[in-house]
Amino acid sequence: MYTSPRLLQPLIWVTGVLAVFPDCQNGPLQTETICNTSASPLDRAKSLVTLYTLEEKINATSSGSPGVPRLGIPPYQWWSEGLHGIAGPYTNFSTSGIEYSYSTSFPQPILMGAAFDDHLITDVAKVISTEARAFNNANRTGLDFWTPNINPFRDPRWGRGQETPGEDAFHLSSYVKALIAGLQGETTDPYKRVVATCKHFAGYDIEDWNGNLRYQFDAQISQQDLVEYYLQPFQACVQANVGAFMCSYNAVNGVPTCADPYLLQTILREHWGWTNEEQWVTSDCDAVQNIYLPHQWSATREQAVADALIAGTDLDCGTYMQEHLPGAFAQGLVNENVLDQALVRQYSSLVRLGWFDDAADQPYRQFGWDSVATDASQALARRAAVEGIVLLKNDGVLPLSIDSSVSLGVFGDWANATSQLLGNYAGVPTYLHSPLWALQQENLTINYAGGNPGGQGDPTTNRWSSLSGAIATSDILIYIGGIDNSIEEEGHDRTSLAWTGAQLDVIFQLAATGKPTIVVVMGGGQIDSAPLANNANISAILWAGYPGQDGGPAIVDILTGKSPPAGRLPQTQYPASYTSLVPMTDMGLRPSENNPGRTYKWYNGTATYEFGHGLHYTNFSATVTSPMQQSYRIADLMSTCKNATSITLERCAFTSVDISVTNTGAVASDYVTLCYISGSHGPAPHPKKSLVGYQRLFGIAAGASDTARIDLTLESLARVDEVGNKVLYPGEYSLMVDNAPLAAVAFRLTGEEEVLDFWPQPGGNRTGSGVEGLEGYFEGGFGSGQVVV
Amino acid sequence: MYTSPRLLQPLIWVTGVLAVFPDCQNGPLQTETICNTSASPLDRAKSLVTLYTLEEKINATSSGSPGVPRLGIPPYQWWSEGLHGIAGPYTNFSTSGIEYSYSTSFPQPILMGAAFDDHLITDVAKVISTEARAFNNANRTGLDFWTPNINPFRDPRWGRGQETPGEDAFHLSSYVKALIAGLQGETTDPYKRVVATCKHFAGYDIEDWNGNLRYQFDAQISQQDLVEYYLQPFQACVQANVGAFMCSYNAVNGVPTCADPYLLQTILREHWGWTNEEQWVTSDCDAVQNIYLPHQWSATREQAVADALIAGTDLDCGTYMQEHLPGAFAQGLVNENVLDQALVRQYSSLVRLGWFDDAADQPYRQFGWDSVATDASQALARRAAVEGIVLLKNDGVLPLSIDSSVSLGVFGDWANATSQLLGNYAGVPTYLHSPLWALQQENLTINYAGGNPGGQGDPTTNRWSSLSGAIATSDILIYIGGIDNSIEEEGHDRTSLAWTGAQLDVIFQLAATGKPTIVVVMGGGQIDSAPLANNANISAILWAGYPGQDGGPAIVDILTGKSPPAGRLPQTQYPASYTSLVPMTDMGLRPSENNPGRTYKWYNGTATYEFGHGLHYTNFSATVTSPMQQSYRIADLMSTCKNATSITLERCAFTSVDISVTNTGAVASDYVTLCYISGSHGPAPHPKKSLVGYQRLFGIAAGASDTARIDLTLESLARVDEVGNKVLYPGEYSLMVDNAPLAAVAFRLTGEEEVLDFWPQPGGNRTGSGVEGLEGYFEGGFGSGQVVV
Repeated sequence: MYTSPRLLQPLIWVTGVLAVFPDCQNGPLQTETICNTSASPLDRAKSLVTLYTLEEKINATSSGSPGVPRLGIPPYQWWSEGLHGIAGPYTNFSTSGIEYSYSTSFPQPILMGAAFDDHLITDVAKVISTEARAFNNANRTGLDFWTPNINPFRDPRWGRGQETPGEDAFHLSSYVKALIAGLQGETTDPYKRVVATCKHFAGYDIEDWNGNLRYQFDAQISQQDLVEYYLQPFQACVQANVGAFMCSYNAVNGVPTCADPYLLQTILREHWGWTNEEQWVTSDCDAVQNIYLPHQWSATREQAVADALIAGTDLDCGTYMQEHLPGAFAQGLVNENVLDQALVRQYSSLVRLGWFDDAADQPYRQFGWDSVATDASQALARRAAVEGIVLLKNDGVLPLSIDSSVSLGVFGDWANATSQLLGNYAGVPTYLHSPLWALQQENLTINYAGGNPGGQGDPTTNRWSSLSGAIATSDILIYIGGIDNSIEEEGHDRTSLAWTGAQLDVIFQLAATGKPTIVVVMGGGQIDSAPLANNANISAILWAGYPGQDGGPAIVDILTGKSPPAGRLPQTQYPASYTSLVPMTDMGLRPSENNPGRTYKWYNGTATYEFGHGLHYTNFSATVTSPMQQSYRIADLMSTCKNATSITLERCAFTSVDISVTNTGAVASDYVTLCYISGSHGPAPHPKKSLVGYQRLFGIAAGASDTARIDLTLESLARVDEVGNKVLYPGEYSLMVDNAPLAAVAFRLTGEEEVLDFWPQPGGNRTGSGVEGLEGYFEGGFGSGQVVV
Repeated sequence: MYTSPRLLQPLIWVTGVLAVFPDCQNGPLQTETICNTSASPLDRAKSLVTLYTLEEKINATSSGSPGVPRLGIPPYQWWSEGLHGIAGPYTNFSTSGIEYSYSTSFPQPILMGAAFDDHLITDVAKVISTEARAFNNANRTGLDFWTPNINPFRDPRWGRGQETPGEDAFHLSSYVKALIAGLQGETTDPYKRVVATCKHFAGYDIEDWNGNLRYQFDAQISQQDLVEYYLQPFQACVQANVGAFMCSYNAVNGVPTCADPYLLQTILREHWGWTNEEQWVTSDCDAVQNIYLPHQWSATREQAVADALIAGTDLDCGTYMQEHLPGAFAQGLVNENVLDQALVRQYSSLVRLGWFDDAADQPYRQFGWDSVATDASQALARRAAVEGIVLLKNDGVLPLSIDSSVSLGVFGDWANATSQLLGNYAGVPTYLHSPLWALQQENLTINYAGGNPGGQGDPTTNRWSSLSGAIATSDILIYIGGIDNSIEEEGHDRTSLAWTGAQLDVIFQLAATGKPTIVVVMGGGQIDSAPLANNANISAILWAGYPGQDGGPAIVDILTGKSPPAGRLPQTQYPASYTSLVPMTDMGLRPSENNPGRTYKWYNGTATYEFGHGLHYTNFSATVTSPMQQSYRIADLMSTCKNATSITLERCAFTSVDISVTNTGAVASDYVTLCYISGSHGPAPHPKKSLVGYQRLFGIAAGASDTARIDLTLESLARVDEVGNKVLYPGEYSLMVDNAPLAAVAFRLTGEEEVLDFWPQPGGNRTGSGVEGLEGYFEGGFGSGQVVV
């Protein structure tokens, strides 16, 4: 073992020091530039870093930064979480008394994504950042939140798909911009509310599929798929001026992302221009270690930390840099300028958060317990769940007409759910209202046959007989089940898309009674419900994801019609057999010999329920009311867009489309206007269609109309070629409203194709130095054969 | 849902009634034949069953049998467990006071298998059956034990491989005969000690590999592999007159085993003649349900229970028969004679256990707390662990010379193990002595850097820095780690054979110091330790499985040389890359295009450590001292074996071989004599070699010799042809001692080939009636493509 003379005393993993701020009024730094609020954040940060010794700098590379006591720099814990409410290992909820003992827990992103309502997302994110500041002021959480998880939900088996808004890259991009605005605040604000972290950059969407562990997986991704799909939401993060990125556990095309200058420098900083001084990259936790083992990219531990730092990883979630940078410096593997740059980025970011400044001057530093879990926040959490719930099937039984004469049988292991409602990365919610609890608030008779008849894992019959009484005495049967975090979780991918345990048998027994049977499907990843869709005795199916603290009332709001459903599936519901057709490790999106294709754009089989599917309690018609030309000259379209960069392309307008939506049914309802482009422009194969815009309209009364406005840009029309360039092709285009579609307009682009964005190609050495004696040792599990690109 | 007028009130899952016996002295049955101890068990059982109503009979099909109160038949819980000590969901350890608060917990079978000592196994099983009787007399467990798990450990990923003695079918057969003798007692005993249950019949060795769930998996197995490998240990169970079989979750060649008359009737009862009246088959828990879902073999639930009962499943672990046999009878799907037969088998078995007889006449009914966890039992548990531990590598550092001047660094998440030591299916042990505890009893300085540096799952670095002190201050470094039940368990197969978490990095850091570094590998399935074998800085490697309550002292006994190692690997240690070469679902043993072959007999790659590998602290030489002919005429050999059946073939002697073993080194040691046959007899491909006998010799002094006697039968020489017949082929044979080998004798068989056993072929319909609307729904995960046979 390398023992450098510089090897430090064991460092503690810093906790409990989340809101101890430097004292710029009276501390040792008071006369330094770092404390000069009129200096620029860059100059302030630089001035601080120059005061550090090498040892102090190295210690500051850890997410559990010990600070520099001699300078009055307190320890700081960079790692907080806020996926759908404040959470994480270093967020400290009080266990005595009421204050700071809970916060607002929103639905998982997969359900909020189904709302297709960007304003909702901004509102939710504002609550999270507000509550984060209140907890930070109480020394209970940090200011840097390692959220959002914005990798697209590429494969339905992914255990963390629940953390994302869905499978479509445009949808995720739109969602994440709305989210970052709510988390960080306006770019013109003097201080950031909190710093958001777009993770996991990039190509991260496998946990442990069949021996392919995230820590060692090498995602082979074509440049075309990379630009068109995997990177698109991250580009949106740059457009939203996100404060931090997190590089991921996996490698992409041979290089561990935290050691990859192509991703961290060429793409992120050079091509996308993410170069504000306060923007930094953290590693995923212990991902720096993984560059050595199991990736074996770097021959030694010292080389691994040097490779990460040089590639552009500015912060190490873990202690590997702390432990091995002394050796790396001793061996001359890295120079101090690189380390300085990383620290300047960190401290510039803290300057923008007001870390060094007087609390009295900062509105966010005034937030207290009265800002947490307000009535409005609770109502928003319930509304977020209601907006997301998707009605998949309905023979007319819904909305339920319930009164005291109705006897309702309630079954399934989610009926009386508690923390199941939250999904992963949850903090302590204000309360947990189960579907059963919510039904018990209504004026009807409930026959609850609870516990776990069906459930996850083993299909056990032992508790079935307890159902018979509730079945016999009920007029209507509701089964509330599905999957939960025992099936899909961080570190754990699904291997099956079928109903788990004995649930299908239980549901079939309910349906066989001939009584109206309603199934509420819970969980983030879709479960193939074809057997329920095809069973005429099953009257209705709802999908309700992980609906959060008020999930039960939200489900009941939908069931009773108090809030009519308008959510749309944010992911394809594939047939269960899909998992036997393609290994999760095949990152390709387009169909090929051993890949039926991925997402609604490319999947060449028949989905059980399609992306965007969602019924209402009424019907809608739609008309495109904007005048559109039959034909557009590419040269004309390009004229306003000559100097656009990869990042400003989003501002190159094509046209705005007004879509008039009419509620032709009998009850008021929200309506999500989905706008797709399809057509035979550009090289084959062509995607079936591509989402290019959406807008949720609210409470359209029966017989009434409302208008959605969708702003299309040149990017809405562009396709990505095989080397990753974005190209505007001449050819036929069709604009379609909704899945059916409810309306469509055809037009044509003419003239020569134009490249909107030239994509930089990876160069240089994509082979690491390796670890002796481990050749092929971690080569992954069965089914790891990958597409060569 | 079918609601028969016969559908009973909900039945309770019977508990707490494990030793309430029928009262044949004063109860309602006192004058019936069931209470007549001079009548045969068959007549006694028949007389009881005729007294039952159909409803009472149906209720008695459940493992939680409610009994018949009007006849004085108490409830009975058939389900107890005793894999390596009494255990299971219905074994009730006292939580107040000492008595019955614990029992003896032996090592997992995988480690006891490594002892290659059948006498040890009988002794262990006798302790288990003694403690079982004591607990039963205290109303704390039943009399029927659902052990052993005797499916061969075919694929190194199997989560339950730890429950088996290893990968070799001959080894398992020999082991299981020794085990059943200890559990059930001598066949001449008036009462059985307990009833053992050979499970899982058959072809069960996948939990959840990549979406292929045990409940729905259809194992495609050739007749050749079935006879030669998968069924051989079960045939041994029949030879040992085991009282019960358990049919399994999976299907074999299309038919769920609990509904398969070919397995349960044609093979088990007809071909093997397992037809004593007291021999019964139970389903695995809820396996009857699985015939309907997810196997979809039977079109309805009623058909599923009828199919199971008719096929020969006499007892349902679960309630599915209780719930659906009323419907099956109403629909005429099954007749009462079949049900009567099942119950006669059950009650005959209970008669043989003395259930109906006066306690005063039964020695086993006298056992009390003083029979449990005796000093002798504790010593046996420790010896069982010592005998099994395998020395894989040693550069001379072992045995450790320790005295008070030695400073020992102790690392790894198993060092201070508690219940990890036990593996699965464990009861409450007498105590849990960790390796750290055992080392602390020695006269030396221990530097324990504990907790979980490395561990399972996430490779986290956060706790590493805590190692540096212990590393610096120690002369010798011991790492005790590996895998545990978080990695391999019932319901959970492994996906990787590589070292988990960050353990390899930790071990490499220890080794890089240049100090003597010893690695103790824990867990049931082998971990590819090639990186350690190839690292010259790693001095020694031990494998210690799940060593049970005294695992720590057993390991230290070996490390210090108090007990020299003599265990042998009961399974091949494959390279980690093995998992990428063959799907677990491919049941084939022989190498093929997509299968590198399985077990030491067929694997065509290079094992990291071979089956049978195991070093000593000394060296041995061996000589075959029996005179052997150069040639044998098959006709002569067959002359004594004309009327042998499949089951009595084991008595058709070939010859007994005496092998003289000499300890040529400096320290006394046990030695396991492994005897293999190889050669080019019969059709290609030929197995590399086949184990045909073994004997452990004890404490051979330095320079001394001892003799092993291996009894070879005609089956030792036979091979299995493609349709499953056992055939004696003319050709070349070689008898080899040990892996090296240490000695070999060649001989020849001449004349015409002879079939020793004609195998009945499956006939009739191997396609079920199916469940409407679910075609292909549970078709398994990626990699389920199977060999067509």
